[in-house]
Amino acid sequence: MNYLELGIGELEAEKSNLEKLYAKYKAMGLKLDMSRGKPASSQLDLSNGSLETLRTTRSVSGTDARNYGILDGLPEMRAYFGELLGLDPETIVVGGNSSLNLMFDMMAQLMLFGPAGYEPWGRQGRLKWLCPAPGYDRHFAITEKFGFEMIIVPMTPTGPDMNIVESLAKDDPEIKGIWCVPLYSNPQGICYSDETVRRLGAMKTAAPDFRIFWDNAYGVHHIVGEKHLADIFAACKAGGNANRPYYFFSTSKITFPGAGVSIMAMTPEERTWALKRMTIQTIGHDKLNQLRLLQFLPTPADLRNHMKKLAGEIAPKFDLVRKKLSEAFEGTGLLSWQVPEGGYFYAVDTLDGCAKRTVALAADAGVKMTGAGATFPLKHDPRDRNIRIAPTYPPVAELDQAMDLFVICAKLAGVEKLLAEKKN
Amino acid sequence: MNYLELGIGELEAEKSNLEKLYAKYKAMGLKLDMSRGKPASSQLDLSNGSLETLRTTRSVSGTDARNYGILDGLPEMRAYFGELLGLDPETIVVGGNSSLNLMFDMMAQLMLFGPAGYEPWGRQGRLKWLCPAPGYDRHFAITEKFGFEMIIVPMTPTGPDMNIVESLAKDDPEIKGIWCVPLYSNPQGICYSDETVRRLGAMKTAAPDFRIFWDNAYGVHHIVGEKHLADIFAACKAGGNANRPYYFFSTSKITFPGAGVSIMAMTPEERTWALKRMTIQTIGHDKLNQLRLLQFLPTPADLRNHMKKLAGEIAPKFDLVRKKLSEAFEGTGLLSWQVPEGGYFYAVDTLDGCAKRTVALAADAGVKMTGAGATFPLKHDPRDRNIRIAPTYPPVAELDQAMDLFVICAKLAGVEKLLAEKKN
Repeated sequence: MNYLELGIGELEAEKSNLEKLYAKYKAMGLKLDMSRGKPASSQLDLSNGSLETLRTTRSVSGTDARNYGILDGLPEMRAYFGELLGLDPETIVVGGNSSLNLMFDMMAQLMLFGPAGYEPWGRQGRLKWLCPAPGYDRHFAITEKFGFEMIIVPMTPTGPDMNIVESLAKDDPEIKGIWCVPLYSNPQGICYSDETVRRLGAMKTAAPDFRIFWDNAYGVHHIVGEKHLADIFAACKAGGNANRPYYFFSTSKITFPGAGVSIMAMTPEERTWALKRMTIQTIGHDKLNQLRLLQFLPTPADLRNHMKKLAGEIAPKFDLVRKKLSEAFEGTGLLSWQVPEGGYFYAVDTLDGCAKRTVALAADAGVKMTGAGATFPLKHDPRDRNIRIAPTYPPVAELDQAMDLFVICAKLAGVEKLLAEKKN
Repeated sequence: MNYLELGIGELEAEKSNLEKLYAKYKAMGLKLDMSRGKPASSQLDLSNGSLETLRTTRSVSGTDARNYGILDGLPEMRAYFGELLGLDPETIVVGGNSSLNLMFDMMAQLMLFGPAGYEPWGRQGRLKWLCPAPGYDRHFAITEKFGFEMIIVPMTPTGPDMNIVESLAKDDPEIKGIWCVPLYSNPQGICYSDETVRRLGAMKTAAPDFRIFWDNAYGVHHIVGEKHLADIFAACKAGGNANRPYYFFSTSKITFPGAGVSIMAMTPEERTWALKRMTIQTIGHDKLNQLRLLQFLPTPADLRNHMKKLAGEIAPKFDLVRKKLSEAFEGTGLLSWQVPEGGYFYAVDTLDGCAKRTVALAADAGVKMTGAGATFPLKHDPRDRNIRIAPTYPPVAELDQAMDLFVICAKLAGVEKLLAEKKN
C-alpha cells in the first residue's frame, strides 16, 4: 500500500487504526533505549577475558610498562595496529581510552598551534568545515565548539557527494577540512568507494592546510561480508597532499567502550608536530592497558576472530531491523533506508518533516531513540527526516518490541503529515 | 673545611685530589640514572596487586563500568578522593591516567574558551604567569607552550615569597595565575604554611580571572611524619575568590606511573564549565581503572597504609642523600639544601654558576641527573645553581655510588669556580 496515493478517507481510517495500536503500546509502559551506539551486556561479556590478571608488565622494548615513559605507545602495540589496519607503525601514536579525545585534542592543537608549518587556525579568522550528513553528532559537536561554520554535504551510496566536496573546497580558503567515517558510516552504514577516497586525496583545496579527519571507527566491524576501504594515505600522497589525513581508530567497540585503546596516524612530519604538543600534555598514556589488549587478543588475527563473535551478537539485531523495516515500509512511500553491512547503526529517512514527530511519539510510549536532528550539524536536520536506529544495546526481544512501536510511530507521523497536506 | 676561605694553593691541591677521584669514578664506566622522579621497580612491586583480575565491573551507581557513560567519574571514586584529600566529592572530576594532562587541557580550555564568565585568555593579549622556582619543569613547559611570559618567584621555607606574589599580582592584570606544588614541592620538598595558603586565597589580583593551579602531586607522600596542608578552597572562599583554585592530584606515584587515576577539583561553577568542554572532548575516562584502584586499595585508609609501605622504600634513599650531603658539604660553603620530609626530591644549590658544570661532570662519568636549569622557566636558572636530585629510581647501592660521584662533581665544580675567581 503506497500511502502517498491514499485519499483523505483512507488516511483517516489508517490514522485511527494506528492511533489504536499506538495507545495499546503506550499502555504497556515500555522503557527501552535505542538512543546510543552502546554494545549490549552480552556483547561486553565476550571481552571479559581482558579483565584477567595481567601476566606481564614488560614491553618487548624492555620498558617496564608500569613506569613512566614511551609517549607514542608500546612499539608492539603500534606494530599490531599497523598490521590490523594496513598502516605503517611509524605513523601511529597510541592514545588513551578515547579516539574522540584524540580528535578533540588534535582540533585544539590546530586551533592553538596550527597544522605543522601553518598559522594557528584560531588566528586565521573565519573557519568552515565540511560535514557529510547524516553523520556523527559528536564530530559535529567538536567543530561547533571550536566555532567552525559547518557546511552540510549530502551523502551518497559511495560516500559524501564528491562533486559538492570538490567544488566547495577548491574555491573557499576558509574551508579547513572534512569529517569522514569511511567504513560503515555513522549512521547510514555507507562505505566510501575507492573513487571517493581517490578524489578526497587528489582534490585541489583553496586552503593549503586542508585536513581530513578520517575516523575509521568501524574499520573492522564487518557483519555481512567484508567491505574494502582504500588507503587514504596512499590516495593523499598520490594527489600531492601527503599531510592531509589524520587517521583515528579505537577498540572501544571491540573490547570495552571507555576502557579500550585508541590510536591516531599521520605522516611523519605531522606526527613529529603532534608529539611536540603531546610531550607537553602528558608523560604517556596507559601502557598497561595496551598490554591488557595484547594479552587478551595477542594478534590482529585474534582480534578479527573476536570481531566475528561480536558480529554474531549484532547480526540478529541488524536482521531484525532489516526485516521489520522491509515488512512495514516497503512500497509505502513513507520511509527510505539503506541496508548496512557492518558498523553499529541503521538510518532511515521519513517523509520531510516527520522525524521529530516520530521520535517524540516513540519517546512518549517509552522508547528512547537518538534525538531527531542529532545526525546533522547543530542538531538541525533541514528536512527533519533522518532518524538513527541504534539496535545494539537492547536484547533482541526488547528490540523487537521497540521496532514494532517505531513502525507505528513512523507510520502515524507520516499519515498525519499526508492528511495535513491534503486538507490544506 | 670552608672552601670559601682557602687560598689558591690549597684549592689547587684540592682540585688535583678531586680530579684523581673523578678519574677513578669515570674509569668505572657507571651507567646510573637520577634524572627523573620515577619510582623504583621494588616500589612498583608493592602495587602488583592492582594487576589482578578485576572481580566486579559494576559501579555502586548501578552503571556497568565496561560500557560508555559517567563523564565525571564513578561516584564511589569521587567520594574516595573526597575523603582522602578533604574535598567535597561534588567538586571532583575524575580524569584519565595523567593529572598533567588535566592541567594541560585546563590551560587549553582557558586559552580557547576562557575561565567561566571571562573572555578566552587567547584573546586577551599579553599573558603572564607566576612561576615559583625552583619548580616542576613540566609545569613551566605548559605555560611556555601557551605563550605566557613566566615570572620567577623565589621560594622560601614556607612556600613562594608571598610579598613578591602579592605585589606582582595586585598591579598587573596580565598576570593570570600561578603554579603551586603546595606539599613537598618539586624539587625542594617545601610545604606551604597555613599563612601562605591564606594569603594566596586572600590576595587582591589585578586580573579578575586570576587562577591558582594547585598541583597537590605529593599530597599523601609523607616520609618523615605528616605535614599539614591548609584547605585552598576554604582560603579562597574566605578571601572572596572562591573560583580561584584548580586542584589536581593523581595516583601516578601511589600505584603505577602512567596507569593510575587522576582527578581535578574546582567550585561547582567552574566544574560545570569544565564539564561542558569535557562532554565534547570525550565520552568518559577509563572507569575500569577506577574500579581497579578501588579493588586494590578499597578505602582511603588502605591507601594511606600503602603510602607507609612506599615510604619504607623511599626513606632509606632519602636518608642516604641526607647523610652524603651532610658529610660532604656541611661547613664547606659549597652547597646548600633543605631536608625534605616527603615527596620525591632533594634540591641543592651550588655556588652561583656551578650547576651546569656539576651535572655535566656527572654525566661524563655515567650518572645522568636532571638537567641543570630544568627547575626554572625556559630551563634557565639565572644563577645556574639549582640541581634536582631524584633518588627514588636507582636501588640503594647504585644511589650510594651515584651520590659519591655527585659529591666529587659538585666539589670539583665549586673549586674550579673559586680558583677562577681568585686568579682573576
